[in-house]
Amino acid sequence: MPEKSSYIVVGDGQMGLVLASLLHEVHPDARVVLWGHVPSEIKELRATRRSPRLADYELPEAIEVVTDIGPCVDASLACVVSAVPTQFVRGVWETMRGVLPPSVPIVSVSKGVEIGTGLFPTSILAQSLDEAAGTREYVTLSGPTIATELAARKPATMLAACIDVATAQRVQQMFSSSWMRVYTTTDHAGVELAGAAKNVIALAAGIVDGMDLGFNAKSSLLSRGLAEVVRLGEALGARAETFFGIAGVGDLATTCFCPQGRNRSCGEALGRGQSLDDFLEHTIWVVEGVPTTRALLVLAREHNVEMPITEAVASVLFEGVSPGEAIATLMGRPLRSEVI
Amino acid sequence: MPEKSSYIVVGDGQMGLVLASLLHEVHPDARVVLWGHVPSEIKELRATRRSPRLADYELPEAIEVVTDIGPCVDASLACVVSAVPTQFVRGVWETMRGVLPPSVPIVSVSKGVEIGTGLFPTSILAQSLDEAAGTREYVTLSGPTIATELAARKPATMLAACIDVATAQRVQQMFSSSWMRVYTTTDHAGVELAGAAKNVIALAAGIVDGMDLGFNAKSSLLSRGLAEVVRLGEALGARAETFFGIAGVGDLATTCFCPQGRNRSCGEALGRGQSLDDFLEHTIWVVEGVPTTRALLVLAREHNVEMPITEAVASVLFEGVSPGEAIATLMGRPLRSEVI
Repeated sequence: MPEKSSYIVVGDGQMGLVLASLLHEVHPDARVVLWGHVPSEIKELRATRRSPRLADYELPEAIEVVTDIGPCVDASLACVVSAVPTQFVRGVWETMRGVLPPSVPIVSVSKGVEIGTGLFPTSILAQSLDEAAGTREYVTLSGPTIATELAARKPATMLAACIDVATAQRVQQMFSSSWMRVYTTTDHAGVELAGAAKNVIALAAGIVDGMDLGFNAKSSLLSRGLAEVVRLGEALGARAETFFGIAGVGDLATTCFCPQGRNRSCGEALGRGQSLDDFLEHTIWVVEGVPTTRALLVLAREHNVEMPITEAVASVLFEGVSPGEAIATLMGRPLRSEVI
Repeated sequence: MPEKSSYIVVGDGQMGLVLASLLHEVHPDARVVLWGHVPSEIKELRATRRSPRLADYELPEAIEVVTDIGPCVDASLACVVSAVPTQFVRGVWETMRGVLPPSVPIVSVSKGVEIGTGLFPTSILAQSLDEAAGTREYVTLSGPTIATELAARKPATMLAACIDVATAQRVQQMFSSSWMRVYTTTDHAGVELAGAAKNVIALAAGIVDGMDLGFNAKSSLLSRGLAEVVRLGEALGARAETFFGIAGVGDLATTCFCPQGRNRSCGEALGRGQSLDDFLEHTIWVVEGVPTTRALLVLAREHNVEMPITEAVASVLFEGVSPGEAIATLMGRPLRSEVI
C-alpha cells in the first residue's frame, strides 16, 4: 500500500486555515486541500493567500483552495478535517454525503452541541452523512488551541481522541510537529463533552470578570465547575482523567482566562448587567456556551447529576436572575466536603 | 463545656491580617488576637489599624494586636492560625514551645517546603514545637486566596484539610462566611503537596509568559504540570482528586494567571533572559517555587516518578539551560498517549 499522502480540510475559518498550514508543514510533499463554502471568498483566498478571518496569516502557495472536494478524493486521502463551527456542521456535511469512502477517517475540531438536538459534533457528522454507527472512524482533536497563536507557530498541545487507538495514533503522527505536540486517548466521549462544557464554565468565569470579583472567585468557579462536569462525564461513561488533561483543564484555563474568548466575553457583558438578548443582537457569532448550558442541564437531569454552577449560569441566561443573586445562591449552599 | 470563643492568628502579613478580620466577622463576640514579631510594627498596627503590607485594609478595632501570645491562651481558645511564610515557620514557632495545650489545633496557611529540609509546613510546625506525631491536630487551609481580594471581601473558597474529619469540619465552620465558602477533605498530604507544587508550575508558566508563547502553551504546561504532580502525589499516598479541586487546579490557575504572583513573575523574568541569581538579588521575597523545585525532584527520584516539566524548570533555574532549549526538550519528547 502506498503511503497516504493527501489531506482535505473542510472549513476556511481560523482553525481550518491553521490546520491546513500545519499539515502542509508536517507533510511538505503531500497534497493539502482547503475547502470553503462561499465561492467569492474562496476565489479571494486563492488569489491573495490572505483571509479576513485571521490577520497576519498567509496561506502557503502549495495549499489548494476549492469549493468542491469531490475531485480531490482518491486512494491517497489520509483523512479529512472538519473545521466547521458546530452549528454549521450539519449544513456543510449533508452536501458531502457519499463523497468520502468509509475508510477515510474524519478529524473533527468543532466544539459544542447542536442547537435543538443537543448532539456533539461527531454525532452530527454521522447523522449528516447518513452513515450507521461504526461505518467510519471519527477522531476529535481538542485542547487549548487559540488559532492566532497556532498561526504564529507558538508551542501547543492537542489530544487526538478516537475509540480506535490505532486511528488516534495515526492522527497523532499526522499533526505532530516541532511546535505541536499531540497526545492520544480512547475517551472520545469525554473529549467531546469537555470541549463543549468548558464554554459553560467560561460564561460563569466571564460573569465573575464582569462583576470584578477577582481571581479567587474565578478559579473557584473553574475548579468547582470542572468537578460538576466530571460528575456528568462519569455518568455518561467518560473517564474523569480526561477532564483533568489537555482537553479538559488545559482548554478550560485558556477559555476562562484569554480575554478574547467569545463565551468569556459574553459572560463578562452579563456580569456588567447587559441582557443576553441584547448581547446576542450585537454579535455575529454563536456563543456556544448558551445552547450547551441547556443541553448539559437536560443530560444532568436524565442522569441525576447535581450541577449547581451550570444551573446558576442557566438562571442568569434564561430566567432573569441577576448575576449577584446567582453568586449568592452558589455561596450559600450547605457546607460540605469537597467531592470531585 | 462552654463554646470556644477565642482565636489567635500568628503572623501579621497579608494572610494573617485578612484571616483575623474574617474570624472577627464570623465570630463578632469572640476574642480575636493577632500576633506579630516586630514590636515597632505591632505598635504601629495597634495604633493606626493599617499595615504597609496590605493597602486599603483596616484592621477592626476589636482585634487585639500582641507580640506575645502566652497571656491570650486559655480554655476558650478554638484554634491558632499559623500565617507565616514557610521559611520563617521554624523560627517563629520554636519560640512558642509549650505555650499551647495539645488540644488546640493549629491551622496552617503556609505553602511551600523548607529550604534545606524539604519539609512541608505542618511538619516544620510539629518539629519546631518538639511534639511527637499525633500530639496535636493540624489543619491546612488552602485554595486560591489572593489576600487583597479577601481584604475586599470578594467571594472565595478554601479547603480545610485534616486527617481528622471532625476537626476539619470544625475549622470549616470557623472560617465560613457569606463570601468565604470552605470545603473539607481528609487528604492533608495532598493539599500540602498541591500548595507547594503549584509554585513550580507557576515558574514554568511565567517562563512561557516571558517568552511570549501565549495561552495555548501556558495552559498545556498547566495541565501537563498538574498531571506530573498528581503522579508524585499518588506515589506519596495523596489522592488524585485533591489536585483537581480548589487547592489543586483552583489555586494553580490563580497562581499561573494572576500577574502579581511572585513565582510567575520570577519565571517571566527568566523567560526574558534574566538569570535567577540576578532576579533574586533584586527581590526581598523568597520565591517559594525555587526550593520547591529541588524538593520535588528529590521526592520524584525517591519514588521513581517522571516529572519532565519540573526537570525542565530545574534545568533553567540551576543548570544554565536557556528557556528556549527547555521548551524544545519538552516538545521533543517521544509522542505518547495522555497519562494523568
